[in-house]
Amino acid sequence: MTNPSPEITPAPEARLPTREGVLRAADKIAALVPRTPLLPLELPDGATVWCKAECLQPVGAFKIRGAWHRLTDLSEDERTRGVVAVSSGNHAQGVAWAARRLGIAATIVMPSDAPAVKLNETRRLGAEVVPYERMTQSRDAIAAEICAERGSVLVHAYGDPWVIEGQGSAGIELASQMECFAGGGPTRIVTPCAGGGLASGLALACPEAEVVPVEPEGWDDVRRSLAGGAIVTVGANPPTTACDALQALTTFPINFAVMTSHGMQGQAVSEAEVRAAQAYAFAKLRLVVEPGGAAALAAVLAGKVPADGRTAVILSGGNVDPAAFARVIADN
Amino acid sequence: MTNPSPEITPAPEARLPTREGVLRAADKIAALVPRTPLLPLELPDGATVWCKAECLQPVGAFKIRGAWHRLTDLSEDERTRGVVAVSSGNHAQGVAWAARRLGIAATIVMPSDAPAVKLNETRRLGAEVVPYERMTQSRDAIAAEICAERGSVLVHAYGDPWVIEGQGSAGIELASQMECFAGGGPTRIVTPCAGGGLASGLALACPEAEVVPVEPEGWDDVRRSLAGGAIVTVGANPPTTACDALQALTTFPINFAVMTSHGMQGQAVSEAEVRAAQAYAFAKLRLVVEPGGAAALAAVLAGKVPADGRTAVILSGGNVDPAAFARVIADN
Repeated sequence: MTNPSPEITPAPEARLPTREGVLRAADKIAALVPRTPLLPLELPDGATVWCKAECLQPVGAFKIRGAWHRLTDLSEDERTRGVVAVSSGNHAQGVAWAARRLGIAATIVMPSDAPAVKLNETRRLGAEVVPYERMTQSRDAIAAEICAERGSVLVHAYGDPWVIEGQGSAGIELASQMECFAGGGPTRIVTPCAGGGLASGLALACPEAEVVPVEPEGWDDVRRSLAGGAIVTVGANPPTTACDALQALTTFPINFAVMTSHGMQGQAVSEAEVRAAQAYAFAKLRLVVEPGGAAALAAVLAGKVPADGRTAVILSGGNVDPAAFARVIADN
Repeated sequence: MTNPSPEITPAPEARLPTREGVLRAADKIAALVPRTPLLPLELPDGATVWCKAECLQPVGAFKIRGAWHRLTDLSEDERTRGVVAVSSGNHAQGVAWAARRLGIAATIVMPSDAPAVKLNETRRLGAEVVPYERMTQSRDAIAAEICAERGSVLVHAYGDPWVIEGQGSAGIELASQMECFAGGGPTRIVTPCAGGGLASGLALACPEAEVVPVEPEGWDDVRRSLAGGAIVTVGANPPTTACDALQALTTFPINFAVMTSHGMQGQAVSEAEVRAAQAYAFAKLRLVVEPGGAAALAAVLAGKVPADGRTAVILSGGNVDPAAFARVIADN
């Protein structure tokens, strides 16, 4: 696979995300949907970690958080001109879901090879889907053109202060849930990572906790960026990964600034480790977790990130292809 | 299949279950484990119902509720003599889980053809498993013998006032959750039904709501008992069902009294309807639900029970055989 469209668009908004913004987003989400559960999970070594089941959100992923926070802060004028997003599927559904509830038109630029379940659901939620070819077209250019034509607001999947704050609301919830049942807030949060929207939101939400973003091997540009102290992109010809939700080619300065000031260091996991984590969540938690959604659990199960009773693990999404999921649980 | 061991043992305790007991059990459960989520589910006709995801309990089923309420009410003397249960698997795990946490010895009489995952988990939780042959041995006789030998307390899977009250705590929780997000408590609760422990507990918890117990076709002795006004047993040679958790041969007077005074009427579902419900919960809720755990949702999806925004559906368990689950999601 070549690397056709590195996402070098600057952050669409100059303002920085804040912890106050995260708290405001958390209040909005609390009034919108039931809190996703924090489930205890016993690891093979006997330790118990706490899994935040974001795969149980209405669209099957945490993405409604950032989308809801962004769209509810639009002006009346902005609402009439609609929103545009680029996404391989989960952010697409999050924006489409929030837009439908608010009566806002949504246009989503999606790779034509996104999982059928994600394409279909996005359309079913009432959004206009504009497909593009991952290998030959720049999704950012297509989105920018639509925004210019219609005067629409771009809701970036991670390089946006509202989106970062919205995703961070998961951290506010899990900290409160751990206070109840784990005897204290998280000292470590392990999270799947694409562009760093969720990881930077969690860092703002839980400044005392170590946050560990986890990417698929070969797509670990955030890990390399954090290790080297400067933003790098995914290399040419990255390996094939089942983690379609984690195929972001680079993080944005707005995310990188939060992650570096938090002292974050990342991890990478193999495809086999991801499948093992999906099978473990199926058997032990009775949850359907998509490959990208299982990346953080994969790092914990592989012993790449230490874990104890004050460790939270984000299960970020559950939109899987049924046939692929059937193979994973039958083979592992 | 013949009908070798109709469960005609009288209820082990004479006291009747009460709503106060349900409330006391709910308080104990609230301090023990995180509340299972109540998830909105859009039906194909556009209506939204509320699914209580009991498959997310630590042992993958609601059964820890009754077991915890019963075991925590034992005297110090009773605790030292241990407990005995008969179960095809989920009640077994619930009792074993509660007993381990309380340091009580547990002996579980289980059919030798119970799903391997349930047999293994019960042993892993530290219980002694006594297997019996479903076709030729009476599980109640075996349990009674062990109780007599050791002076142990029998924790019946449904014919026990503590167990009924404990299971009812799910109703207290879902009513409070619906007040928050559905604009009012449940007017109808649809629940999988084996012997009627959960159904009678829910009726005590939510006296204003219609409660609909759902059984597999051919195993619908509770439906027939309620329709006829007298307890009947499953007929000879009942059909094979994937709903291993719902293969109780008869309800007990203690359950029947609560169900009839509540005016309950039951429903039955086919094996195909159960599989379709498992596939729907997989795709729409990202939950792993076992066949018996999906019976109530099956009745709703099949249009056998009316459903609207004030309807709660219990997803009672998620302990599935991986290969069987893989076939269900690949074929539906």
